Amino acid sequence: MSEFEKREGEIALSADPADFADDCKVVFIGKINTSWKTRAECPKNLVQARQRGIKATIEIDEFWRAGLAGLEDRSHLIVLYWMHQARRDLIVQNPRHRNEPVGVFALRSPVRPNPIALSIVKILGVDQATGKIDIDAIDCLDGTPVVDIKPWLGTIDSVQI
Amino acid sequence: MSEFEKREGEIALSADPADFADDCKVVFIGKINTSWKTRAECPKNLVQARQRGIKATIEIDEFWRAGLAGLEDRSHLIVLYWMHQARRDLIVQNPRHRNEPVGVFALRSPVRPNPIALSIVKILGVDQATGKIDIDAIDCLDGTPVVDIKPWLGTIDSVQI
Repeated sequence: MSEFEKREGEIALSADPADFADDCKVVFIGKINTSWKTRAECPKNLVQARQRGIKATIEIDEFWRAGLAGLEDRSHLIVLYWMHQARRDLIVQNPRHRNEPVGVFALRSPVRPNPIALSIVKILGVDQATGKIDIDAIDCLDGTPVVDIKPWLGTIDSVQI
Repeated sequence: MSEFEKREGEIALSADPADFADDCKVVFIGKINTSWKTRAECPKNLVQARQRGIKATIEIDEFWRAGLAGLEDRSHLIVLYWMHQARRDLIVQNPRHRNEPVGVFALRSPVRPNPIALSIVKILGVDQATGKIDIDAIDCLDGTPVVDIKPWLGTIDSVQI
Protein backbone atom coordinates (compact mmCIF):
# COMPACT_ATOMS: atom_id res chain seq x y z
CA MET A 1 0.00 0.00 0.00
CA SER A 2 1.27 3.43 -0.87
CA GLU A 3 2.11 5.62 2.11
CA PHE A 4 -0.16 8.28 0.59
CA GLU A 5 -3.16 5.99 0.31
CA LYS A 6 -5.87 6.15 2.96
CA ARG A 7 -6.56 3.19 5.22
CA GLU A 8 -10.04 2.16 6.35
CA GLY A 9 -11.72 4.76 8.54
CA GLU A 10 -9.20 7.49 7.82
CA ILE A 11 -10.47 11.01 7.16
CA ALA A 12 -8.76 13.74 5.16
CA LEU A 13 -9.54 17.42 5.66
CA SER A 14 -11.51 19.21 2.93
CA ALA A 15 -8.44 21.36 2.23
CA ASP A 16 -4.75 20.58 2.56
CA PRO A 17 -3.02 22.71 5.24
CA ALA A 18 0.09 22.71 3.04
CA ASP A 19 -1.89 24.87 0.60
CA PHE A 20 -3.14 27.53 3.00
CA ALA A 21 -0.93 27.48 6.14
CA ASP A 22 0.35 31.03 6.49
CA ASP A 23 -0.20 32.17 10.09
CA CYS A 24 3.50 32.27 10.91
CA LYS A 25 6.78 31.46 9.27
CA VAL A 26 9.51 29.24 10.56
CA VAL A 27 13.22 29.23 9.80
CA PHE A 28 15.22 26.00 9.88
CA ILE A 29 18.17 26.34 12.27
CA GLY A 30 20.04 23.20 11.25
CA LYS A 31 19.60 19.56 10.39
CA ILE A 32 19.77 16.14 11.99
CA ASN A 33 22.37 13.69 10.75
CA THR A 34 21.16 10.11 11.17
CA SER A 35 21.95 6.70 9.70
CA TRP A 36 18.52 6.40 8.05
CA LYS A 37 18.56 7.37 4.37
CA THR A 38 15.14 5.98 3.38
CA ARG A 39 11.77 5.70 5.09
CA ALA A 40 11.97 1.93 4.89
CA GLU A 41 15.04 1.78 7.14
CA CYS A 42 13.97 4.61 9.45
CA PRO A 43 12.79 3.60 12.95
CA LYS A 44 9.08 4.27 13.47
CA ASN A 45 9.55 5.91 16.87
CA LEU A 46 12.12 6.74 19.53
CA VAL A 47 11.77 3.36 21.27
CA GLN A 48 12.79 1.59 18.05
CA ALA A 49 15.56 4.14 17.46
CA ARG A 50 17.01 3.51 20.95
CA GLN A 51 16.81 -0.26 20.51
CA ARG A 52 19.10 0.01 17.49
CA GLY A 53 21.72 1.70 19.67
CA ILE A 54 22.90 4.08 16.95
CA LYS A 55 23.71 7.68 17.88
CA ALA A 56 22.83 10.76 15.87
CA THR A 57 24.11 14.33 15.55
CA ILE A 58 22.20 17.58 15.38
CA GLU A 59 24.10 20.19 13.37
CA ILE A 60 23.13 23.80 14.02
CA ASP A 61 23.89 26.23 11.20
CA GLU A 62 26.69 28.72 11.81
CA PHE A 63 24.38 31.74 12.02
CA TRP A 64 22.76 30.38 15.23
CA ARG A 65 25.71 28.79 17.02
CA ALA A 66 26.17 31.49 19.68
CA GLY A 67 22.82 30.20 20.98
CA LEU A 68 24.45 26.93 22.07
CA ALA A 69 26.46 28.47 24.93
CA GLY A 70 25.60 26.75 28.19
CA LEU A 71 23.84 23.78 26.61
CA GLU A 72 26.74 21.52 27.65
CA ASP A 73 25.47 21.78 31.25
CA ARG A 74 22.13 20.17 30.38
CA SER A 75 21.45 16.42 30.39
CA HIS A 76 18.57 16.12 27.92
CA LEU A 77 17.32 18.02 24.92
CA ILE A 78 13.85 18.57 23.48
CA VAL A 79 14.18 18.57 19.69
CA LEU A 80 11.50 19.98 17.39
CA TYR A 81 11.98 18.92 13.78
CA TRP A 82 10.06 19.35 10.57
CA MET A 83 8.79 16.17 8.90
CA HIS A 84 9.12 17.63 5.44
CA GLN A 85 7.94 14.50 3.63
CA ALA A 86 4.72 14.09 5.62
CA ARG A 87 1.28 14.95 4.27
CA ARG A 88 -0.68 17.39 6.46
CA ASP A 89 -4.35 16.71 5.74
CA LEU A 90 -5.05 13.37 7.43
CA ILE A 91 -7.07 14.41 10.49
CA VAL A 92 -8.19 10.89 11.51
CA GLN A 93 -5.69 8.06 11.07
CA ASN A 94 -5.68 4.29 11.37
CA PRO A 95 -2.20 3.31 12.49
CA ARG A 96 -1.19 -0.33 12.27
CA HIS A 97 -0.66 -0.56 16.04
CA ARG A 98 -4.25 0.50 16.84
CA ASN A 99 -7.52 -1.35 16.28
CA GLU A 100 -9.55 1.66 15.19
CA PRO A 101 -9.17 5.10 13.62
CA VAL A 102 -7.88 7.79 16.00
CA GLY A 103 -7.64 11.57 15.79
CA VAL A 104 -4.24 12.98 14.83
CA PHE A 105 -4.00 14.91 18.11
CA ALA A 106 -4.16 11.64 20.06
CA LEU A 107 -1.23 10.29 18.01
CA ARG A 108 2.46 11.08 17.57
CA SER A 109 2.23 10.46 13.83
CA PRO A 110 4.46 12.75 11.70
CA VAL A 111 1.38 13.26 9.50
CA ARG A 112 -0.36 16.27 11.10
CA PRO A 113 -1.53 19.82 10.23
CA ASN A 114 1.87 21.23 11.21
CA PRO A 115 4.28 18.31 10.80
CA ILE A 116 6.54 19.19 13.71
CA ALA A 117 7.88 16.11 15.49
CA LEU A 118 9.25 16.14 19.01
CA SER A 119 11.79 13.92 20.73
CA ILE A 120 13.36 14.14 24.16
CA VAL A 121 16.91 12.83 23.81
CA LYS A 122 20.06 12.45 25.88
CA ILE A 123 22.86 14.95 25.21
CA LEU A 124 26.21 13.17 24.73
CA GLY A 125 28.28 16.19 23.76
CA VAL A 126 28.04 19.79 22.51
CA ASP A 127 30.63 21.48 20.28
CA GLN A 128 29.68 25.11 19.86
CA ALA A 129 32.40 25.78 17.26
CA THR A 130 31.06 23.19 14.80
CA GLY A 131 27.44 23.44 15.95
CA LYS A 132 27.31 19.70 16.59
CA ILE A 133 25.27 18.12 19.37
CA ASP A 134 25.70 14.37 19.77
CA ILE A 135 22.55 12.62 21.02
CA ASP A 136 21.75 9.03 22.00
CA ALA A 137 19.14 8.31 19.29
CA ILE A 138 16.42 9.81 17.10
CA ASP A 139 13.78 8.45 14.73
CA CYS A 140 14.05 10.65 11.62
CA LEU A 141 15.59 10.57 8.17
CA ASP A 142 19.09 11.89 7.59
CA GLY A 143 18.94 15.61 6.79
CA THR A 144 15.66 16.35 8.61
CA PRO A 145 15.40 20.11 9.28
CA VAL A 146 15.49 21.37 12.87
CA VAL A 147 12.93 23.95 14.04
CA ASP A 148 14.04 24.40 17.65
CA ILE A 149 16.03 22.81 20.44
CA LYS A 150 15.34 23.40 24.13
CA PRO A 151 16.76 21.99 27.34
CA TRP A 152 14.58 19.40 29.08
CA LEU A 153 14.00 20.62 32.64
CA GLY A 154 12.88 18.24 35.37
CA THR A 155 11.07 20.99 37.26
CA ILE A 156 8.57 21.55 34.46
CA ASP A 157 8.83 18.55 32.12
CA SER A 158 8.60 15.62 34.54
CA VAL A 159 5.26 13.84 34.61
CA GLN A 160 3.96 11.99 37.65
CA ILE A 161 1.37 9.37 36.67
CA MET B 1 13.82 48.59 31.70
CA SER B 2 11.89 47.91 28.53
CA GLU B 3 11.37 44.26 27.69
CA PHE B 4 12.88 45.01 24.29
CA GLU B 5 16.04 46.49 25.70
CA LYS B 6 19.15 44.35 25.86
CA ARG B 7 20.67 43.41 29.21
CA GLU B 8 24.43 43.20 29.82
CA GLY B 9 26.11 40.48 27.80
CA GLU B 10 23.15 39.84 25.55
CA ILE B 11 23.76 39.37 21.82
CA ALA B 12 21.32 40.03 18.98
CA LEU B 13 21.67 38.37 15.59
CA SER B 14 22.79 40.52 12.65
CA ALA B 15 19.38 39.97 11.04
CA ASP B 16 15.97 39.43 12.61
CA PRO B 17 14.53 35.97 11.86
CA ALA B 18 11.08 37.56 11.75
CA ASP B 19 12.21 39.33 8.57
CA PHE B 20 13.53 36.32 6.65
CA ALA B 21 12.01 33.14 8.16
CA ASP B 22 10.35 31.38 5.24
CA ASP B 23 11.44 27.74 5.26
CA CYS B 24 8.01 26.42 6.16
CA LYS B 25 4.59 27.78 7.01
CA VAL B 26 2.51 27.01 10.04
CA VAL B 27 -1.24 27.21 10.53
CA PHE B 28 -2.71 28.00 13.94
CA ILE B 29 -5.14 25.26 14.99
CA GLY B 30 -6.73 27.07 17.93
CA LYS B 31 -5.97 29.22 20.95
CA ILE B 32 -5.34 28.93 24.66
CA ASN B 33 -7.79 30.58 27.03
CA THR B 34 -6.03 31.64 30.23
CA SER B 35 -6.62 34.09 33.07
CA TRP B 36 -3.59 36.19 32.13
CA LYS B 37 -4.47 39.26 30.06
CA THR B 38 -1.16 41.13 30.34
CA ARG B 39 2.48 40.11 30.47
CA ALA B 40 2.78 41.62 33.95
CA GLU B 41 0.24 39.17 35.41
CA CYS B 42 1.37 36.17 33.35
CA PRO B 43 3.33 33.47 35.20
CA LYS B 44 6.95 33.25 34.02
CA ASN B 45 6.94 29.46 33.70
CA LEU B 46 4.86 26.35 34.31
CA VAL B 47 6.01 26.00 37.92
CA GLN B 48 4.62 29.45 38.71
CA ALA B 49 1.46 28.71 36.71
CA ARG B 50 0.84 25.51 38.73
CA GLN B 51 1.47 27.29 42.02
CA ARG B 52 -1.40 29.66 41.25
CA GLY B 53 -3.76 26.68 40.91
CA ILE B 54 -5.75 28.19 38.04
CA LYS B 55 -6.84 25.96 35.19
CA ALA B 56 -6.83 26.84 31.50
CA THR B 57 -8.60 25.68 28.36
CA ILE B 58 -7.24 24.95 24.91
CA GLU B 59 -9.84 25.61 22.23
CA ILE B 60 -9.26 23.86 18.90
CA ASP B 61 -10.91 25.50 15.87
CA GLU B 62 -13.84 23.66 14.33
CA PHE B 63 -11.97 22.71 11.15
CA TRP B 64 -9.58 20.46 13.12
CA ARG B 65 -11.86 18.95 15.77
CA ALA B 66 -12.14 15.47 14.23
CA GLY B 67 -8.47 15.18 15.19
CA LEU B 68 -9.38 15.12 18.90
CA ALA B 69 -10.98 11.65 18.78
CA GLY B 70 -9.26 9.37 21.28
CA LEU B 71 -7.45 12.13 23.17
CA GLU B 72 -9.76 11.57 26.16
CA ASP B 73 -7.86 8.33 26.86
CA ARG B 74 -4.56 10.16 27.40
CA SER B 75 -3.37 11.59 30.72
CA HIS B 76 -1.03 14.37 29.64
CA LEU B 77 -0.67 16.65 26.65
CA ILE B 78 2.33 18.26 24.99
CA VAL B 79 1.27 21.72 23.82
CA LEU B 80 3.23 23.71 21.23
CA TYR B 81 2.19 27.37 21.14
CA TRP B 82 3.37 30.45 19.31
CA MET B 83 4.69 33.29 21.46
CA HIS B 84 3.47 35.93 19.04
CA GLN B 85 4.70 38.87 21.10
CA ALA B 86 8.27 37.61 21.49
CA ARG B 87 11.23 39.01 19.59
CA ARG B 88 13.23 36.41 17.66
CA ASP B 89 16.74 37.83 17.30
CA LEU B 90 18.23 37.54 20.80
CA ILE B 91 20.64 34.63 20.44
CA VAL B 92 22.41 35.09 23.82
CA GLN B 93 20.30 36.16 26.77
CA ASN B 94 20.86 37.22 30.36
CA PRO B 95 17.83 36.06 32.32
CA ARG B 96 17.32 37.43 35.83
CA HIS B 97 17.57 33.96 37.37
CA ARG B 98 21.06 33.33 35.94
CA ASN B 99 24.37 34.94 36.82
CA GLU B 100 25.72 35.17 33.28
CA PRO B 101 24.60 35.33 29.65
CA VAL B 102 23.43 32.00 28.20
CA GLY B 103 22.63 30.83 24.68
CA VAL B 104 18.96 30.74 23.74
CA PHE B 105 19.10 26.99 23.07
CA ALA B 106 20.10 26.37 26.70
CA LEU B 107 17.04 28.35 27.87
CA ARG B 108 13.26 27.95 27.71
CA SER B 109 12.83 31.66 27.02
CA PRO B 110 9.93 32.51 24.67
CA VAL B 111 12.40 34.78 22.86
CA ARG B 112 14.01 32.48 20.25
CA PRO B 113 14.48 32.18 16.46
CA ASN B 114 11.17 30.31 16.15
CA PRO B 115 9.15 31.41 19.19
CA ILE B 116 7.42 28.07 19.78
CA ALA B 117 6.89 27.36 23.48
CA LEU B 118 6.26 23.88 24.87
CA SER B 119 4.43 22.74 27.99
CA ILE B 120 3.55 19.28 29.22
CA VAL B 121 0.21 19.58 31.02
CA LYS B 122 -2.38 17.36 32.65
CA ILE B 123 -5.58 16.70 30.68
CA LEU B 124 -8.67 17.31 32.84
CA GLY B 125 -11.29 16.85 30.12
CA VAL B 126 -11.79 16.76 26.36
CA ASP B 127 -14.99 17.87 24.56
CA GLN B 128 -14.64 17.10 20.88
CA ALA B 129 -17.89 18.90 19.95
CA THR B 130 -16.73 22.27 21.28
CA GLY B 131 -13.02 21.62 20.71
CA LYS B 132 -12.24 22.36 24.36
CA ILE B 133 -9.50 20.64 26.33
CA ASP B 134 -9.32 21.54 30.01
CA ILE B 135 -5.78 21.45 31.42
CA ASP B 136 -4.32 21.93 34.89
CA ALA B 137 -2.22 25.04 34.15
CA ILE B 138 -0.22 26.92 31.53
CA ASP B 139 2.05 29.94 31.47
CA CYS B 140 0.88 32.00 28.49
CA LEU B 141 -1.27 35.01 27.74
CA ASP B 142 -4.98 34.59 27.02
CA GLY B 143 -5.49 34.04 23.29
CA THR B 144 -2.07 32.55 22.55
CA PRO B 145 -2.18 30.63 19.24
CA VAL B 146 -1.73 26.84 19.26
CA VAL B 147 0.63 25.21 16.76
CA ASP B 148 0.20 21.55 17.74
CA ILE B 149 -0.96 19.24 20.51
CA LYS B 150 0.35 15.73 21.03
CA PRO B 151 -0.20 13.06 23.66
CA TRP B 152 2.61 12.69 26.19
CA LEU B 153 3.72 9.04 26.11
CA GLY B 154 5.67 7.52 28.98
CA THR B 155 7.42 5.04 26.70
CA ILE B 156 9.21 7.78 24.75
CA ASP B 157 8.93 10.99 26.82
CA SER B 158 10.02 9.82 30.29
CA VAL B 159 13.51 10.86 31.30
CA GLN B 160 15.64 8.88 33.75
CA ILE B 161 18.27 11.08 35.36
